[in-house]
Amino acid sequence: MLEAAETGARLSKAEYAETVPQLRVDLINAQYDLRLADFPVIVIIAGDDRLAANELVNRLNEWLDARYLRTHVLGDLTSEESERPRFWRLWQSLPPKGQIAVWAGGLFRQVHAYLRGETTAEELATWSRHLESLQDQLLADGALVVKFFLHSGRREQKARLKGAERDPELGWRVDQRDWARLDELADARPVVERLLRQFSAPGSPWNVVEATDARYRDVTVARILRDALLARLAQAGAPPPAAAVSMFSGAGRSALTAVDLAATIDRAEYRKRLNVLQARLHRLSLEARDRGLTSVLAFEGWDAAGKGGTIRRITQALEAGDYRVIPTAAPTEEERRYHYLWRFWRDLPRAGTTVIYDRTWYGRVLVERVEGFAQPGEWQRAYDEINDFEEQLAERGYYVAKFWLHLSPEEQLARFQARADTPYKQHKITDEDWRNRERWDDYAEAVEETVARTSTDRAPWYVIPANDKRWARIAVLEAVTKGLKRSLRQA
Amino acid sequence: MLEAAETGARLSKAEYAETVPQLRVDLINAQYDLRLADFPVIVIIAGDDRLAANELVNRLNEWLDARYLRTHVLGDLTSEESERPRFWRLWQSLPPKGQIAVWAGGLFRQVHAYLRGETTAEELATWSRHLESLQDQLLADGALVVKFFLHSGRREQKARLKGAERDPELGWRVDQRDWARLDELADARPVVERLLRQFSAPGSPWNVVEATDARYRDVTVARILRDALLARLAQAGAPPPAAAVSMFSGAGRSALTAVDLAATIDRAEYRKRLNVLQARLHRLSLEARDRGLTSVLAFEGWDAAGKGGTIRRITQALEAGDYRVIPTAAPTEEERRYHYLWRFWRDLPRAGTTVIYDRTWYGRVLVERVEGFAQPGEWQRAYDEINDFEEQLAERGYYVAKFWLHLSPEEQLARFQARADTPYKQHKITDEDWRNRERWDDYAEAVEETVARTSTDRAPWYVIPANDKRWARIAVLEAVTKGLKRSLRQA
Repeated sequence: MLEAAETGARLSKAEYAETVPQLRVDLINAQYDLRLADFPVIVIIAGDDRLAANELVNRLNEWLDARYLRTHVLGDLTSEESERPRFWRLWQSLPPKGQIAVWAGGLFRQVHAYLRGETTAEELATWSRHLESLQDQLLADGALVVKFFLHSGRREQKARLKGAERDPELGWRVDQRDWARLDELADARPVVERLLRQFSAPGSPWNVVEATDARYRDVTVARILRDALLARLAQAGAPPPAAAVSMFSGAGRSALTAVDLAATIDRAEYRKRLNVLQARLHRLSLEARDRGLTSVLAFEGWDAAGKGGTIRRITQALEAGDYRVIPTAAPTEEERRYHYLWRFWRDLPRAGTTVIYDRTWYGRVLVERVEGFAQPGEWQRAYDEINDFEEQLAERGYYVAKFWLHLSPEEQLARFQARADTPYKQHKITDEDWRNRERWDDYAEAVEETVARTSTDRAPWYVIPANDKRWARIAVLEAVTKGLKRSLRQA
Repeated sequence: MLEAAETGARLSKAEYAETVPQLRVDLINAQYDLRLADFPVIVIIAGDDRLAANELVNRLNEWLDARYLRTHVLGDLTSEESERPRFWRLWQSLPPKGQIAVWAGGLFRQVHAYLRGETTAEELATWSRHLESLQDQLLADGALVVKFFLHSGRREQKARLKGAERDPELGWRVDQRDWARLDELADARPVVERLLRQFSAPGSPWNVVEATDARYRDVTVARILRDALLARLAQAGAPPPAAAVSMFSGAGRSALTAVDLAATIDRAEYRKRLNVLQARLHRLSLEARDRGLTSVLAFEGWDAAGKGGTIRRITQALEAGDYRVIPTAAPTEEERRYHYLWRFWRDLPRAGTTVIYDRTWYGRVLVERVEGFAQPGEWQRAYDEINDFEEQLAERGYYVAKFWLHLSPEEQLARFQARADTPYKQHKITDEDWRNRERWDDYAEAVEETVARTSTDRAPWYVIPANDKRWARIAVLEAVTKGLKRSLRQA
């Protein structure tokens, strides 16, 4: 696969001079058309030739308009990055619709870490599975992903390094790492080839480009990129792919019906339990801070089910600097320019703290599904996407728990009316709440499917009966203290 | 000043129950009106009573709508934060117009660090000078800044801590730090009082609130906040304050006229120098990376003066992962919701890397001044604001250099025409460029004043003759290599 690219392809100075001006015009024009288009572009530059990748990145920044291009070189993780799941930085680096991101490096680095025994085969497999999933998600979301692997033969690289070292004017471009990489090239090849095959996707193959001749390399990459941009722009506005069929069978639905809504607790008992549980949570949270264990608590539930009050009973037990509550509303205009999971990745906290989402990424399979804001194909693939997201949190050692606060329709009605009668709560009830209420059964079906398909050992759903608010608060605090304690024990 | 607040003020349960509902309605309504207003709100909570501050933060999050409120507890610097100038995190925490940010903690922490000898008197003075400057800038920009200092007498705090420790249900709220703070309270008082006086500003006094009684404390803070919001909302749309008179005298202008635009270099000599300088810059940049020294290079200049080409000669000498070029265009809609310096603070890089701004914060005193996008009062105070910004970069150990690429009008015209004739450069020339050209003298005056008022020892301006592009590139590379070398020696 890689050897096949070792053809000694070159481009003469004259050919280059003849080709480049028009190529640059085409690229700039395509980039300008892209600004109005409804998809982002990710250019991935991997390869076994670091110097070539460096030069190519500089070239792309020269030939494209740098205002709508952002380059991310994936070197060692920063401390900020290493406090989050591994792919956090890729999500942080996603381009908005209409723009281009260049991701350079990272793949070969991962391979070398494996060859040196710094990561296990299992870790490499997990890494590549999540990377594949990310690519699938971006492609499904409409992104154009153009991938290049810059390859130079070992002999050519060696000769170039030697020549460069002899030439005092070029000597600065070479350092010890380049020689070290050269030694590992042969061992790396089978691993790299396997990964390249794995990351090939329909509509996004790898372009292996021989990198020995700079003129040939830059022009070849630029041409492929231009053609991919033009082809994709020509398709824009095409209908989305047909919806996949839902594989979820309604049979055996029980998450909501199994819940005993009559559960209740008296006020004195509530006070006592609340104090004990808050004290316990406080101690656990200090330990979590010391040990860098992060908590992600996700709250969903019927309107007026008491999410806000429950969340406050949690935050009261935490130090003000150790948590953040993120109320999830309809995405802003900026957020709509990204994959729907982007904003949740963005807000992942630093190590040792707690983030509480008041409504969550499950909006995709709940409100967006029921109200038709997401296409069937979109919300149907979201279960896998969400599972992959949460798996990455758990793998990073996060404590993850998800709560659905469950109510009877009658109790909800009573609360809506009480809110309308309480001046400082009136802003909490809107026409939308009344409309949602009319679609109770649709929502219930969506909740059932959600719980069935996304409750996992490492990121469980808790369906909490909340007709009695106090009972619900205690139940949630009990789940959180138990779960956090277990996570601390396993960490 | 603080003692005067020790009045033993309390609020009975009945008074509280009577007051709070209407107070909450008022707060929510004011917050909703704020969303459409043209200013941000910063609520600062400082104090000598940590537990009280913690509780108050939770209370504000309960009484206000958390969707338009963001709380920032200023604890220890994260690693990400400590790689930037000290106030980076405050700039990162600024609310956009129409929203509220709560900044809690930090002030007392700073005082204690000083009392313990962890920071010197000089460092404390520098810190408070920049904080004052930040407050002045925000107020001048229209922000509402509401400041609270929560004070409890030593006796009350001691009694409360003891009582809490005896009560198993409350015991978790107290820890060792609280006792340690109590011991330092007396020594801290004179320092705190001095700082409070210093940070008082017209329109933004400190509100010292006795914090011993939780009901009194929360209601008092909420009332002051409500009244401040309502008063400021009532003023909205009022005309901006009268412009200050420019103190800059045109006499002795020389930055541009002193430059020898005939400076030139032949092609062979250029090649040779370029290779030597790039190799040198590469070595210096690796050393800077190793030692965590950050570089900020700011490029301004006439249209078509060759900023892009010059920047590329710099980036060619850097590793692709070690730099970022930020092309500064007109602010986006989101950016316009913040102070004009916000986006430049946002993009400050992590330690050891280089950020190159292609056009900069000087837009405020150049294009915004000349085109009338900024009011005279706004651009006139910008010199001080910019000097303060750059001083903070230098204090953090950054290497800072600013370049104005200077051209003759005749050379600019020739380049415009050449661009119009080169297909892949046509996008670089717009009607705006031709319009700017007609205001050459206005721009020249703005540049003269800018260079005169903002060229400092630690953040110098270099006015570079650029009629010969090659000469300009060499001159810039020489300045950067020399300056970076000096910074490394001093670091």
